[in-house]
Amino acid sequence: MGKTIMMTDNSLKLYEQVVHYLVVRIEAGEWTEHEKLPSVRSLSELLGVHRLTVFKAYQELKEHGKVYVKDKSGYYVSPADPAPIMDQADDPAVSAWLHWDSLDRVQSLEAEFQFSKSLIDPALLPNRFWGELMRDLLNHYPRLLGTYSTNQGDLELRSELASHLTSRERFYISADEVLITSGAQQAIDLIARSLVKPGDRVLVERPTYGPAMEIFRKQGAKLVFTDITSEGYDLDQIELLMKQEKPKLFYMTPTFQNPTGINIPVEQRKQLPELAEQYGCFLVEDDSTYDIYFKEKPPAPIFTYDTTGHTLYIRSYSKYVVPGLRIAAIMCRPRFMPGLQAMKTLADNGSPLLNQKLFLRYFQSPRMYQHISKLCTAIQLRMEVMEKCLKETDWRWTTPQGGLNIWVELPEGMDTGRLLHRCMEHSVAFVPGTVFDPSDPGASRKLRLSYSYAHEQQIYEGMSRLIELAHKKV
Amino acid sequence: MGKTIMMTDNSLKLYEQVVHYLVVRIEAGEWTEHEKLPSVRSLSELLGVHRLTVFKAYQELKEHGKVYVKDKSGYYVSPADPAPIMDQADDPAVSAWLHWDSLDRVQSLEAEFQFSKSLIDPALLPNRFWGELMRDLLNHYPRLLGTYSTNQGDLELRSELASHLTSRERFYISADEVLITSGAQQAIDLIARSLVKPGDRVLVERPTYGPAMEIFRKQGAKLVFTDITSEGYDLDQIELLMKQEKPKLFYMTPTFQNPTGINIPVEQRKQLPELAEQYGCFLVEDDSTYDIYFKEKPPAPIFTYDTTGHTLYIRSYSKYVVPGLRIAAIMCRPRFMPGLQAMKTLADNGSPLLNQKLFLRYFQSPRMYQHISKLCTAIQLRMEVMEKCLKETDWRWTTPQGGLNIWVELPEGMDTGRLLHRCMEHSVAFVPGTVFDPSDPGASRKLRLSYSYAHEQQIYEGMSRLIELAHKKV
Repeated sequence: MGKTIMMTDNSLKLYEQVVHYLVVRIEAGEWTEHEKLPSVRSLSELLGVHRLTVFKAYQELKEHGKVYVKDKSGYYVSPADPAPIMDQADDPAVSAWLHWDSLDRVQSLEAEFQFSKSLIDPALLPNRFWGELMRDLLNHYPRLLGTYSTNQGDLELRSELASHLTSRERFYISADEVLITSGAQQAIDLIARSLVKPGDRVLVERPTYGPAMEIFRKQGAKLVFTDITSEGYDLDQIELLMKQEKPKLFYMTPTFQNPTGINIPVEQRKQLPELAEQYGCFLVEDDSTYDIYFKEKPPAPIFTYDTTGHTLYIRSYSKYVVPGLRIAAIMCRPRFMPGLQAMKTLADNGSPLLNQKLFLRYFQSPRMYQHISKLCTAIQLRMEVMEKCLKETDWRWTTPQGGLNIWVELPEGMDTGRLLHRCMEHSVAFVPGTVFDPSDPGASRKLRLSYSYAHEQQIYEGMSRLIELAHKKV
Repeated sequence: MGKTIMMTDNSLKLYEQVVHYLVVRIEAGEWTEHEKLPSVRSLSELLGVHRLTVFKAYQELKEHGKVYVKDKSGYYVSPADPAPIMDQADDPAVSAWLHWDSLDRVQSLEAEFQFSKSLIDPALLPNRFWGELMRDLLNHYPRLLGTYSTNQGDLELRSELASHLTSRERFYISADEVLITSGAQQAIDLIARSLVKPGDRVLVERPTYGPAMEIFRKQGAKLVFTDITSEGYDLDQIELLMKQEKPKLFYMTPTFQNPTGINIPVEQRKQLPELAEQYGCFLVEDDSTYDIYFKEKPPAPIFTYDTTGHTLYIRSYSKYVVPGLRIAAIMCRPRFMPGLQAMKTLADNGSPLLNQKLFLRYFQSPRMYQHISKLCTAIQLRMEVMEKCLKETDWRWTTPQGGLNIWVELPEGMDTGRLLHRCMEHSVAFVPGTVFDPSDPGASRKLRLSYSYAHEQQIYEGMSRLIELAHKKV
């Protein structure tokens, strides 16, 4: 799998990709000051590139003062530099890579026309009603702010979620099969830390949510990729990978998939748990926008088809119910709970009780689903405006049935990393495809556009700028 | 260091300790269903015990259906059992070990006389005033509940903390040297994950906060222990360990040390940063009850004496300012920030903004320190009641100058693990010393009593029960 670690974006010279590979990891602290870096030989084997390429990359880093050479014993990390290499890189492509290797960095970019954040415009949320709930909250729980939650999460909230999902979505779970987390991000992290050991294989969709790949990599896992198309998964490919690579788990976002927006069809949802059982692979089903659909409700979660308890289901309400509270939940069979709870305890000793109780009050109020259906209409309108703009181009995309993103493919020869570089000069932000897909050369022609954060006028103007810049030949 | 992993409590037969060692890790998911366990040979080498001892432990686990044997190839983990082994163990000592190996488990025990939770009685907290702040909050930040925080933490809060600590406690830091975390627990976890690599040594106090040891162990670190006495540290021992073991960092709670309550003297606080620089070891200073003192303010944090930026300072306000918000902060030099921020992003994408802003409002109000000084008086009274009860015994302890705990040593032959077992039948909870000290045989005679959660009457009655039970010979 070594090769898949390696970016294969043709628009970048290979040695630049090695530079990028090293810089990102040095900055993430994978190697620290004065620590010896991998030898040219071992790195060239790991990345599947020629030794001269690695050598050239090290030379480049040396010139930028990022590494130094100790007599003949190899390359070492230089002490942290007040002006990091990325601000010195002149080649826009390298610079783009260095700035935009992670979703987090892209989304931290300030822009007037914000299509990189798959978040909901706060103006669309019932802030006033929440204010009333919050003012009311202390009457119900006078000592709320002085009290810790249990590590697994507030029992009242877990019971409410369990009975709600059971009655409304046929989950058939009890409160002890629910663990409250601080957003889906923490849910993925806890699952990875409790189930994945160094050397394990982890199966992921191609393309998929970048930070999840990063979490599994940090656990020492080797990533294995399975393709996702408008038809969904290729189950034969998945079965082959499960047989050959024996992945510990399959991390998936089967509903309004991130970034493609694709919904995995019901038939595949039924078959996946059987494959999971047959090959002893856990399914981690990350579901962050289940209720944000435009025409019809998406198919039932894979979890509801799993009769053998191989699925860990992450239901996040953090994006569209009350974002500021950062509430998500892991639903899984009790056998997973001791490990997950132990990790949750080490990670943060339990999510704040205030957030859980406030969320509970909203979740119990009839207002929540009224608001969510209004929200869906508002988001659909914005999606349609964005799609109208795209129709002016020869780009390719699939109309989303829900969720917050459109996944767009530009014609041959385009590079969305470079494009973002130009767009930022005009205050337009999006996420380049390579963030979601480290292994597909075509990813550098793709980009993810989120239509839920900017309002119609911003979408219209921002998209015009984006399209104009894309067609400027440079 | 292998041997230090091994408990050396004389009150337990050696094979029972091996049983405990295996059960805890199986339950924590370190080995999963049908996974092969270490061979008798390798485990006996790791733990430094005879092979027959390991063999006997495996037999015991086999009888309890916790492991099974596959032909001749070794021992494997049995599928999760609805009735875990620990509820089947008859020997009270084994049972005690199995239940009470972790602080989390001990603190989860329900008890009428609660001395195991080093938390503050919610009745002592200004819940009504917080309610006013909360009701008022949405007027200042109308879209608060719809907005995410940055990963490093709300800038307004970071600036306030930086200027406050700089003007009040001579920290001389800026907002970009502060990272907001969800409690000290997350702060330790983020630091461990960004700085510690498998095989690294980590220096810790003996005794120390159990979950911190667990975090470093999960990162693959080997723990090295340095003793703490009423005089503080033994700097010669620390220098020797830094020289020989080259620890990556030294995790310490130098102010109202947990569990001993000891304050490290100023002279040692000045010398430690010099040792840290000389041997390239980072200092992780965990400070969770700095403002809870009885007569005089504790010495300034080690961070304020560190001129070379080797100290990462964890200031937690989660215990005594607004517990329900779970707010703590890491203060460190900018070179650590990229790694910490990257981990915070993967861990939970930033702490909820609501909690940060609400904390900020309280932190800015003159009421906070007024309340904290009242709180100190109330807690001191409870401590004095507890100490009055202890004076009826021949046990040994040092009168705390602050913090929330008394560290007590019982006479030879006493075993606080067994004692807790009996106490729980009379609804009295405390933390046995072994939770804080895996390597000192004497730890089984010690216990930690928290005086901040129960009120005077409960302390008086609960202590009487505890002392009576301790003197019952069994």
